[in-house]
Amino acid sequence: MPPDAARRSDRSRRAILVAALELVEALGYSKLTIEAVAARAGVGKQTIYRWWPSKGPLLFDALVELGPVGHDSPPSGDLAADLKRELRLAVGELAERRFDQVCRVLVHESRTDLVTLLLMPRRMVVEDRLRSAQRLGDVRPDVDVSAAAELLLGSLYQRWLLRTAPLTEDFTDAVVDLVLRALSDRP
Amino acid sequence: MPPDAARRSDRSRRAILVAALELVEALGYSKLTIEAVAARAGVGKQTIYRWWPSKGPLLFDALVELGPVGHDSPPSGDLAADLKRELRLAVGELAERRFDQVCRVLVHESRTDLVTLLLMPRRMVVEDRLRSAQRLGDVRPDVDVSAAAELLLGSLYQRWLLRTAPLTEDFTDAVVDLVLRALSDRP
Repeated sequence: MPPDAARRSDRSRRAILVAALELVEALGYSKLTIEAVAARAGVGKQTIYRWWPSKGPLLFDALVELGPVGHDSPPSGDLAADLKRELRLAVGELAERRFDQVCRVLVHESRTDLVTLLLMPRRMVVEDRLRSAQRLGDVRPDVDVSAAAELLLGSLYQRWLLRTAPLTEDFTDAVVDLVLRALSDRP
Repeated sequence: MPPDAARRSDRSRRAILVAALELVEALGYSKLTIEAVAARAGVGKQTIYRWWPSKGPLLFDALVELGPVGHDSPPSGDLAADLKRELRLAVGELAERRFDQVCRVLVHESRTDLVTLLLMPRRMVVEDRLRSAQRLGDVRPDVDVSAAAELLLGSLYQRWLLRTAPLTEDFTDAVVDLVLRALSDRP
């Protein structure tokens, strides 16, 4: 592809992904159509179908590439505060309609491997934070950081998926306090 | 209903539920038919349809009434041992094809309220055990027993549903050890 065409193609691709996320947030998954995405992105329907067979894969790519995970705030030095912030971000993410809708549809279609992939960036942030705390001695050396991250995020995702109870920040703060007692030597 | 007819009806109902569970274990959910359940239970198809509209509700009732949760072993006095046993039982339950198949179908049909209902008995056992440990001082008085039970079982159900990692007894034992550190004052 000549450079100009490649640039146009990149621009179209990004416009399509942005339009798809905006529309799923506004309309929900079931009412979203490829026609509407094409219109909003200013491209032809065929341009979308050249890259994605249907709206499911399109939305998955949109979430992966433009999804909400950000590493903007550096660790504060206070492990509890950092983990509480991460879990609150995770709850906020799940509350976003675009994320909730796409993940539930993927579970519905038994594509739980893709849900895991979408949740993975948040999990990596938590693991990294725990690992650096372990180097500083705030987390015991024998703690399996990966299991601890699963403990922190597991009950949260569980509540979200099965809707067993409201997903509040009080709950995620309590989970962090409880788990941190288990991870540190300090009382 | 005269007493004899009521007894016959109870016997048929139980035979149908037992047959449904045996068949879903042997064939899986998708290959199970009402015809096969009727033949195995020795009743007419119409008898089944009088009580259940389709195989989904039939299997749900079968799991609720004849499901695997048992309270057979009394608490041993060793909290860690008791919780490890309960989590191992939970893993065993999830590994049973009849349980796995029915729960996954319910999640697939977005009937997560029913999945929660199926998981509830195990959760109640864990909460009861924690509450009696709290009375004895093995669990700190300020611990929210219901949140602790969610922490113990949440990551387990999460792994089961999303298949993020193998659901081993080593894993559930490690979860119990980690969470118990958080629940008790003792080092």
